Amino acid sequence: MLRLIGIGLNPKKHMTLEALEKINDSDEIYLELYTSRIVDMTLDELENLINRKITLLDRKTIESEFLVERSRKMKVSLLVPGDPIIATTHIGLVISSIQNNVEYEIINGISVQCVVPSILGLQNYKFGRSVSIPFPEYDYYPESVYNFVLENRKLGLHTLVFLDLRESLEMSALMGIDILLKMESMYRKDAIDKNTIIAVISKAGSEKQRAIADKIERIKERDLGPTPHIMVIIGSLHYMELEALKKLASFPENENINLL
Amino acid sequence: MLRLIGIGLNPKKHMTLEALEKINDSDEIYLELYTSRIVDMTLDELENLINRKITLLDRKTIESEFLVERSRKMKVSLLVPGDPIIATTHIGLVISSIQNNVEYEIINGISVQCVVPSILGLQNYKFGRSVSIPFPEYDYYPESVYNFVLENRKLGLHTLVFLDLRESLEMSALMGIDILLKMESMYRKDAIDKNTIIAVISKAGSEKQRAIADKIERIKERDLGPTPHIMVIIGSLHYMELEALKKLASFPENENINLL
Repeated sequence: MLRLIGIGLNPKKHMTLEALEKINDSDEIYLELYTSRIVDMTLDELENLINRKITLLDRKTIESEFLVERSRKMKVSLLVPGDPIIATTHIGLVISSIQNNVEYEIINGISVQCVVPSILGLQNYKFGRSVSIPFPEYDYYPESVYNFVLENRKLGLHTLVFLDLRESLEMSALMGIDILLKMESMYRKDAIDKNTIIAVISKAGSEKQRAIADKIERIKERDLGPTPHIMVIIGSLHYMELEALKKLASFPENENINLL
Repeated sequence: MLRLIGIGLNPKKHMTLEALEKINDSDEIYLELYTSRIVDMTLDELENLINRKITLLDRKTIESEFLVERSRKMKVSLLVPGDPIIATTHIGLVISSIQNNVEYEIINGISVQCVVPSILGLQNYKFGRSVSIPFPEYDYYPESVYNFVLENRKLGLHTLVFLDLRESLEMSALMGIDILLKMESMYRKDAIDKNTIIAVISKAGSEKQRAIADKIERIKERDLGPTPHIMVIIGSLHYMELEALKKLASFPENENINLL
């Protein structure tokens, strides 16, 4: 039995009754931290919370047959920050389990997608597809990412932006904005400009979480807090959403905004 | 202090450590069931789970000043199925709290948006904006809903479809499909046709949860299970997503599908 268990952004708060029960009933417990991060907790503290030993796995091992093979004879749990099915890797594990006749279970967790609209007071159904901005290695600026933002903006939708994570590197919102502006200057289809509103959440789910929203031209002067950052490119705003951004993300009070 | 507390689709499984802690620390506990449902539990069982008395509130009371006024002097918790910030009503409560200088907290829960991609093995970032299909009273078929589906389909994105809920009425997926086909015949922009793939989840989050995916022309002959239903209009499929639909939602094995 292979279990993919979502432990939320902050397991101290987000761990569910089902996750605790299934962890408790497992023979071996693994964790991966490369598709996202947990906040406010070390691995030791997480082990104390669930009162079990946890083995941290690297990407290569998770993408190998290791977990499915272990799960043939034992109850194996892979703990995943957030919700377990966000990444292709995890869908791959499910399919590999089915193909190998290994039973599996998915235990949902609180994901970034749930938390972000709550933090900013934005309506969930106003979000279009999410995008990820990769570090621009070898000057590679994917036009597809730019086009997804453009399509959402044309439809008045908000875009949740995942900023690249590496072993010890976390892309800041300011770097993400610079990459978007660079893409705008390359592809020139008016996806964003200096008046586009961006919301940045610092340390989502942690005790130190904070949110700031402002127009691109001014956001660089504001204190956005430490990484990890999550970013939202704001689409058309309902007046209630604008009120929320003012109250929850200190968007300037007297700003002129075209409302829906 | 007003607390909006998400209790997930199935509180027996989805209740988080934070929700339990905050409920336990509250003076009064309310519940609303009109923006969504909980499964596998009666109100009595929920009271037993949290070991507290719960008062069920109707829509009118929730949209009044009642909760904010009660929260001036006491710790008041409103339990909400799923995640608490999906509905405009709840954003309204947050803003009203701020305007009245009443402290508030939002406690995230497991929402339909988290659970659906996990059940079907679809990639989260492949979903466009969600839509809601209302009961067609007075022959009202909103073109905006049709256009949102059309826009997602043009972009190859999946569309999560919320089916209308009333006090004792739950729209079935078949009724939702009929309404979409009726809209197609009225607006004729090729949003859907008989080959469009639909996935239907019955009783999401419950022990009896099941999922079926098939083309519209055949889905009417399949046993979709009892309501409540959640529906997804499938966009372009990655081969891994197609594999997942076959394994997780018994999509026909030998179907010819254009993959991404």
